[in-house]
Order: sequence, then C-alpha cells, then structure tokens
Amino acid sequence: MVNKKVIARLSSYRTALLRFHELGFVKVFSDTLAEAVGGTSAQVRKDFSLFGISGNKKGGYQTDNLIEKLQALLGKDRIQSVIIAGIGNIGTALLKYKAFEGEGIKIIAGFDIDPSKQNKKAKVPILPLEEMAAFVHENEIRIGIIAVPEVVAQPVCDAMVATGIQGILNFAPLVLRAKPDVVINNVNLQNELENVIYFVNALSKRIKSSPPNADITD
Amino acid sequence: MVNKKVIARLSSYRTALLRFHELGFVKVFSDTLAEAVGGTSAQVRKDFSLFGISGNKKGGYQTDNLIEKLQALLGKDRIQSVIIAGIGNIGTALLKYKAFEGEGIKIIAGFDIDPSKQNKKAKVPILPLEEMAAFVHENEIRIGIIAVPEVVAQPVCDAMVATGIQGILNFAPLVLRAKPDVVINNVNLQNELENVIYFVNALSKRIKSSPPNADITD
Repeated sequence: MVNKKVIARLSSYRTALLRFHELGFVKVFSDTLAEAVGGTSAQVRKDFSLFGISGNKKGGYQTDNLIEKLQALLGKDRIQSVIIAGIGNIGTALLKYKAFEGEGIKIIAGFDIDPSKQNKKAKVPILPLEEMAAFVHENEIRIGIIAVPEVVAQPVCDAMVATGIQGILNFAPLVLRAKPDVVINNVNLQNELENVIYFVNALSKRIKSSPPNADITD
Repeated sequence: MVNKKVIARLSSYRTALLRFHELGFVKVFSDTLAEAVGGTSAQVRKDFSLFGISGNKKGGYQTDNLIEKLQALLGKDRIQSVIIAGIGNIGTALLKYKAFEGEGIKIIAGFDIDPSKQNKKAKVPILPLEEMAAFVHENEIRIGIIAVPEVVAQPVCDAMVATGIQGILNFAPLVLRAKPDVVINNVNLQNELENVIYFVNALSKRIKSSPPNADITD
C-alpha cells in the first residue's frame, strides 16, 4: 500500500542518494540508506519493492540508476510549476524558499486579494485572486499551495479546484475538502508544534512519576 | 498506542470543539466531531478512550468538559514559551505567525548567527546564537524550533539539546538526531509538496492508462 509516509521516505532516500552520488558512491546498500534517513534496511527494501525496484544482495543498488528511478517517481524528471494563494507570512516564506528551486519545483505566480501585495511585474508575479483561473488554464498548472487565513481557505480551495488544479498543499489550519480526485495534503504548523509540546510533557511526566502507559511512535 | 497522528487529531478535535463551543453547543457527538475533522466516529471514540475520556451514548460528550481535558493533554492549560533558531524566511514567518499566539504558544526569542538579523530590543528579541544556552537556562525553555539551513541544522540541534531543550520542531530538510529522551518532529516542506506532486502524477496516470495497483492513504 502506497501512502504518504512511503512517499515522504522516497523523498528522503532521494536526498540521501544525491549526497552519496556527490561523494562518489557508485553503489549503495539498504543499510547505508536506512542509516542516512533514520530507518531500517528492511523498510528501505520494502519501500523500493513497492515500486518494483530491487537491489542485488551482494552489490546493493546502483546509485545513479536508483536516483533516476526515484526522480521519475517523484516527478523530478521535469520542472513542476506551482502557484500559491495567500501572500502573507507563510506564503512569502514559501515564495522565497530556495530549497524548492533546487528540487525542480518552481512557484510561478502568487495570488492575493490585497492590492498592496499584488505586483504583476515581480519576477514571480503576485496577481489578484480573480485572475487565478485564467492563469492556471493558460499555464496548465496542476499543483497549488494554499496559505490564506483559515476563514477563507475552503472557498479558495474550491476556487482552485474549479480551475482544474489537481493537488493542493494546504497550510491553513483546517482540513480542506474537495472531490476525491483532488489530492490535498494538509500541513498544520500549530499541530506540529503541539505534537512536540505534548510528547515533551508526556515524557517529563513519565520520568517524574508514573510508569509508561503508552508507547510513543512516529 | 499514542502516536503523532493521534495527537494531531486531538489538536484538530480541540479546534473543532472550540468552534462548537462558540456556537453554543453544550454537548457534541462523536459523529459531529468526526465530520468536522474529516474522520470517522469510531476513530474519535477510540482516540478519546486512549486518554480515558468516554462519552455518554445518548448525550455524547460535554463540550466544555471535553475542551478542558484536551487543553490539559495538549499543554494548553499554560503558556508554552518557545525559542527559534534561524531567522530566515521560514523563521521570520513563524515569528509573525498569529495562529501560534492564539494557541497559547509564545515564541519569546529568536537566535541567528547573522548580526544583521540580531535585534536585542525587538518585541521578540533576536540574539546571537552563542547566547542561546544562557537564555534557555534563564527562561526555563523546553521547546525549540529549528529553521536554519540544512548544513548547520545538526550542530544547531546538538547545541539546543546541550542547553536542556527537550523538544524540537525542525524545518530543515533533513532528519535530525538526538538522544532518545529528546522529542524531534521533522517537518520537511519539500517532502510535503513532493507528496502532492507524486499523488497527482499517480492519479493522472491511473486515469489515463493503467488500473490502480496501489491504494492511496493518508
């Protein structure tokens, strides 16, 4: 079964492999990869086998061949053009986020209702939200990022889906809904931080007083 | 078993409950909550039962009582002071992120090696990285956010852990390592976007040509 975590691990394997490749490794073993991403070698082999990628028991995997396969799986064999709705703090940070560029992900336009944020002549133009549909059609965009305030996130999501966008990365702190053929990945920064706070509290309670009554797993 | 996903769902239940409470709901049923967060009522009941919270078959859960329990579990019954290392794009966005404030999370200082980013007199002071240990001790900080570039993220993590920080939310695109009694939550924005790209590609391939050979799950 292919789920979000498997794909997240493929991304991590790929990053590690690119580093090994730079260092001159022609072959790589599952345990080396596992060590690099903080997993187990059994997990590495299982993940790859889901996509029909198998290594050689003695020689491991060919680094360049494996990178190529992961590139194709992760859509890295071509530039991915992405738009973003909401040019507030998070939106601005993402627009400037250099790690995307290096990864073949290109944010090619931003959209905001606030005229003071709009700038048609910027390197990455910031346009009125009403122009999103025309822009998406013209540029055949399939992926959008939502970084608008919570109260308008669902309507903006609906507008994106209506333009034909097929995948959305959502930073607004709510679970967005769309028809089942649209992929939505909700990233809730508050929840991520609350997670850390919860486990820190749970660990310190455990150390201070009571025996563990629950395992903490990822 | 309590894992990250359970805690993320507790955060979502809490957000939904606060909304229901505002709307005047005195009681709430598991299916209403499930609907609000995009889950199932069985899941809601199972999640709550892990923490000894049970509802009444006819009456559901008392909204205020349930909110109180979740607040305590998620450490919302007091202000959580947090520091952040790395005041680049993501770090700056998080410093300004209003949703944290409303959630009882307070970023009380930032740290950066770049003197041009330092500002001791700002409302949230930005200090040199060397001052982190003293600041953490003095203010009894337990939670830190890492938003530094990838190459320095592990040393910054080591420095944080050495100060006594117990939980880290990491935005650098690598898996940070620390001793087992430190909680690390790695949020990789690239991977989150790659996830969307992968599933959009997989869905469009499935629609265009081949029958599904894998389920897509969260």
